[in-house]
Amino acid sequence: MKAIVTVKLKSVVLDPQGQAVLGSLDKLGYDFVKDVRVGKVIELEFDKVRKYDEKVRELTEKLLVNPIIEEYEIKYIGDK
Amino acid sequence: MKAIVTVKLKSVVLDPQGQAVLGSLDKLGYDFVKDVRVGKVIELEFDKVRKYDEKVRELTEKLLVNPIIEEYEIKYIGDK
Repeated sequence: MKAIVTVKLKSVVLDPQGQAVLGSLDKLGYDFVKDVRVGKVIELEFDKVRKYDEKVRELTEKLLVNPIIEEYEIKYIGDK
Repeated sequence: MKAIVTVKLKSVVLDPQGQAVLGSLDKLGYDFVKDVRVGKVIELEFDKVRKYDEKVRELTEKLLVNPIIEEYEIKYIGDK
């Protein structure tokens, strides 16, 4: 099965990459776009194991996310 | 309203960043994870305009995605 971990910068944190995209969109004439935020999405494919949800949450907090500036959510796809 | 653009490498394309995460997970003992793919998620906040969905698709293909190696999907959130 799969876990989809979506990682975003917290809304209070400045996002220079998003601002760069916003600036480029503006120059290209897409000025109806008011804000851009760029995040990550990490797809983990794994064998179903006991308490996989606890483990996935643990590895996410240990390796994939910086909890000081980022927030995340986890969705599961496939046979539970 | 918001458009959420999720960009992934096509499955035939090697993902070195995902492989690096997979290697680290393995070292940390999370060996039940069999594969990792890392993508981007871009949140666009915009004023509703005429044919916004066409425009969002257009700017995505022009600026956010490399169609040779990446694929994407767009979801809309908020008042349509």
